[in-house]
Amino acid sequence: MYRTHTCGELRLSDAGKNVTLSGWVQRTRKMGGMTFVDLRDRYGITQLVFNEENNAELCDKANHLGREFVIQVKGTVSERSNKNKNIPTGEIEIIVNELNVLNSALTPPFTIEDNTDGGDDLRMKYRYLDLRRNAVRKNLELRHRMTMEVRRYLDSKGFLEIETPMLVGSTPEGARDFVVPSRMNPGQFYALPQSPQTLKQLLMVSGMDRYFQIVKCFRDEDLRADRQPEFTQIDCEMSFVEQEDIIETFEGMAKHLFKELRGVELNEPFQRMPWAEAMKYYGSDKPDLRFEMKFVELMDIMKGYGFSVFDNAAYIGGICAKGAAHYTRKQLDQLTEFVKRPQIGAKGMVYARVEAGGNVKSSVDKFYSQEVLQQMKAAFNAEPGDLILILSGDDAMKTRKQLCELRLEMGNQLGLRDKNKFACLWVVDFPMFEWSDEENRLMAMHHPFTHPKDEDIPLLDTDPAAVRADAYDMVVNGVEVGGGSIRIHDSQLQAKMFEILGFTPERAQEQFGFLMNAFKFGAPPHGGLAYGLDRWVSLFAGLDSIRDCIAFPKNNSGRDVMLDAPAPLEQKQLDELNLLVDIKEK
Amino acid sequence: MYRTHTCGELRLSDAGKNVTLSGWVQRTRKMGGMTFVDLRDRYGITQLVFNEENNAELCDKANHLGREFVIQVKGTVSERSNKNKNIPTGEIEIIVNELNVLNSALTPPFTIEDNTDGGDDLRMKYRYLDLRRNAVRKNLELRHRMTMEVRRYLDSKGFLEIETPMLVGSTPEGARDFVVPSRMNPGQFYALPQSPQTLKQLLMVSGMDRYFQIVKCFRDEDLRADRQPEFTQIDCEMSFVEQEDIIETFEGMAKHLFKELRGVELNEPFQRMPWAEAMKYYGSDKPDLRFEMKFVELMDIMKGYGFSVFDNAAYIGGICAKGAAHYTRKQLDQLTEFVKRPQIGAKGMVYARVEAGGNVKSSVDKFYSQEVLQQMKAAFNAEPGDLILILSGDDAMKTRKQLCELRLEMGNQLGLRDKNKFACLWVVDFPMFEWSDEENRLMAMHHPFTHPKDEDIPLLDTDPAAVRADAYDMVVNGVEVGGGSIRIHDSQLQAKMFEILGFTPERAQEQFGFLMNAFKFGAPPHGGLAYGLDRWVSLFAGLDSIRDCIAFPKNNSGRDVMLDAPAPLEQKQLDELNLLVDIKEK
Repeated sequence: MYRTHTCGELRLSDAGKNVTLSGWVQRTRKMGGMTFVDLRDRYGITQLVFNEENNAELCDKANHLGREFVIQVKGTVSERSNKNKNIPTGEIEIIVNELNVLNSALTPPFTIEDNTDGGDDLRMKYRYLDLRRNAVRKNLELRHRMTMEVRRYLDSKGFLEIETPMLVGSTPEGARDFVVPSRMNPGQFYALPQSPQTLKQLLMVSGMDRYFQIVKCFRDEDLRADRQPEFTQIDCEMSFVEQEDIIETFEGMAKHLFKELRGVELNEPFQRMPWAEAMKYYGSDKPDLRFEMKFVELMDIMKGYGFSVFDNAAYIGGICAKGAAHYTRKQLDQLTEFVKRPQIGAKGMVYARVEAGGNVKSSVDKFYSQEVLQQMKAAFNAEPGDLILILSGDDAMKTRKQLCELRLEMGNQLGLRDKNKFACLWVVDFPMFEWSDEENRLMAMHHPFTHPKDEDIPLLDTDPAAVRADAYDMVVNGVEVGGGSIRIHDSQLQAKMFEILGFTPERAQEQFGFLMNAFKFGAPPHGGLAYGLDRWVSLFAGLDSIRDCIAFPKNNSGRDVMLDAPAPLEQKQLDELNLLVDIKEK
Repeated sequence: MYRTHTCGELRLSDAGKNVTLSGWVQRTRKMGGMTFVDLRDRYGITQLVFNEENNAELCDKANHLGREFVIQVKGTVSERSNKNKNIPTGEIEIIVNELNVLNSALTPPFTIEDNTDGGDDLRMKYRYLDLRRNAVRKNLELRHRMTMEVRRYLDSKGFLEIETPMLVGSTPEGARDFVVPSRMNPGQFYALPQSPQTLKQLLMVSGMDRYFQIVKCFRDEDLRADRQPEFTQIDCEMSFVEQEDIIETFEGMAKHLFKELRGVELNEPFQRMPWAEAMKYYGSDKPDLRFEMKFVELMDIMKGYGFSVFDNAAYIGGICAKGAAHYTRKQLDQLTEFVKRPQIGAKGMVYARVEAGGNVKSSVDKFYSQEVLQQMKAAFNAEPGDLILILSGDDAMKTRKQLCELRLEMGNQLGLRDKNKFACLWVVDFPMFEWSDEENRLMAMHHPFTHPKDEDIPLLDTDPAAVRADAYDMVVNGVEVGGGSIRIHDSQLQAKMFEILGFTPERAQEQFGFLMNAFKFGAPPHGGLAYGLDRWVSLFAGLDSIRDCIAFPKNNSGRDVMLDAPAPLEQKQLDELNLLVDIKEK
């Protein structure tokens, strides 16, 4: 061992001990005849002292150390005269009597500090240096502790972690698969799993009863800021359960994690909200409930007064920002610009301030009497000093989503989205299907294995779009951290579901025959849930992107810029795989 | 919840309770007016009773249950008159008053019993039924407990589990990679990792200090019985350590696992054996030390007496099977046939029995005097009743490997390879390189990142084939369960290593530049080890193949016969990936 102690563990009570430390040179300072070196490792920083008077040669060696050199020192723990209260080792220093340079270092391309001067691209290219920063390392430590706690909890509840294969079959339903050519089976491909969904259902058919797995999943999608081509799920499934049992189990797990990792005790049951209500009041299936600002519909109040924008709208609705009547015209114009951005797509925004005396002053005063505006005020329960913001549009769902963005933006501006406050809820009663304009057919909102609500099963024949599912998402602070459903365990109902989704029986058999056949041999009622690990860790770490809780993430083009992957293959590899690359002109 | 209790938990003390159970029908028996059903779940079997006299309709329903039907019953726990001492629930039965069929089942294609009538192919096709068998399920339970204990142990030692990416770059050095075409980067491919070797070394450069990961790895090799294209490693790395520190840490882990999972206390330090010794005395770098039967070299004793087979041999050596002189001529002929099989490739075998009086009777008596045979006997320390078996050949290493196979076969035949006895050792001092006839160059025996022994570094220039490495394998009962090495942390030494391995500087830079560059920014001394999880579980479970400790294994052609993967892609998928399939005639 190159050390007797880490750089984070020595205290005043160790004074007088002879110790050996190893680590990286964080900083050197020369003061008079003394040289001070901050030695860093994963566990902390310890100050080293070299005294020119005592050992000029050694001190000179120390003076030649560069940033990030790897060194080993031997010396004596000594009380510091000038104590540093900010670090746990701040009461001691090491009087060094031997210094070995284990490795030198080029000057790093950015500073290894909490607030680095490195830009995103540079940090990713030299990710191994970026990970030396406390701010990044502690995210990975949190991730480790989280997976330990997840396993501890699930193990204590009788769950078995069972590995499912990474090389599976491709199922074109859903997102795009990453595929893997098989050399031993020429012309054939494996796929990397988008999730172990069907495999965990087979484990239920096999009687495994309670399964979980912390597992890499893959989706070949065009990437957004919070998406990675490979991501990690906490994947769970249980047999002989109903929705309530799953919610109880995994709400318990969430509370366990909050307590162990954040010290937050959540004693109340999580709120439950039907999907329809979430869409109606928050314009989102993952509402951020850290703040109120519920939507109020204004169709009955605001229609028919000659304001053509509203008169022609399929939806008029707004939010009330408490105490924000002080917003200036400039701020309001910026909000209007915000909702008109192409990513949001609103045509404009109407606003109204409730004045000190109770009067309402709106941007559309010429169309509305104070009487109508007072009705509106009452609908919002608005008070003097409040600001009302209204959107309208010819597609209710689209307008609600725009209003959702506005609500979240106002939450940000008014400081209502505190990262240290947690609002958890279950969104339930999701629709079974959603219409896809692209595919011109109904698509499964969760996936084709989701069980419809028993009372809605008759609607499968008459009005499938109205069928609700035994599906549920856990939402924390506006982030969907997990979701799942009760599954179909009956092969006939499963076949009917594929029919509604537009599969021919042959195609259903070809793609999911293995599952439907398995169901014929005694499938138990079952259901489950998958949590997104990356999102959970980001949430607990207060990160804006999942990238910083992943050791080696990919960029928005799916590239690992550190490894410089992907890359072209050697011709020999392509030949062995019976493949030709044929890049089409775009 | 469809149950109040599992099928494994009710005891006599529960008598009188009203319970609900769910599970699979293992068996039904009709005896007089009574029907007995064995209800099975993951946790056990509970007997259900239906009485025709009490409820004829219910009893009739029970009589129509088929094997593997999924049912729910409600009833009262009752003491059994006819107790079954073989199962923990054998003192009670359930007097059923309600029976719900949750799912029917087709007759399974093989019996769901410990000793099934299903052949290997059928079991793999219906793996979800195979997994219902105790014998298979308990392997997965063991696997779960093993990974829990591994994590508990490593966490307690300060290791962080850090996920490394699955989509990395292809490195043609070593085994063949599985590759993944990138849609977003046309003509470029990711590779699936053969191991996270370089990434864990980068984590050491990043100061993570102690890393582990239980992780899927991939190798596109032609498969043997104990190989799978995807397998799981317990992958570990530590900084600021020497070989001794790693051996101590992971020997500690092995002892922890033996104790927790098998109840075996291993108090002595594991034996250490240099590679050269292992090859000399056991003809293998993973000797099975559950039994002695060390090789004895006979070149000095047996050469030069006119027996041309020996006179022309580069190696003559044998083993002494204690007490096996009773082997018949037929048994000895079968052993000769065994070593002459093409997989082993010996030309023949010489044998000698030590008779009751001490005389040696050999198959080559016409060439050797009793005096020479007595010298041979003495070399083996053979006693009356012992059997000596001798091989020779013109390639010492090949002959030793043949003798190794013979030794293991004799171990089997003499019952010396008890699955409940464990002989653990470290094989150390591996050669740095081995010659490849195929590539006509030196290849890294472990991998190109292995540190040579300090005292052998000068030999890199003069006699690289003689250089030994700081590399070590853990061997248990003749199985290599893990191995690792101290790594090179100096970019110049690493560059020299690539040079010896025949890489041009450009090619080394192209393939491993990211690592060599990282070493320039302050790499700590580091080393590690990887255990094969599948092998560990097989060893603890006493399995002959790793396949039965994997939920969904692949067959020898790399196929998942249950999922029917791999399979051809749809044309649209190939187009998106800019690929053409071009199968060459063989």
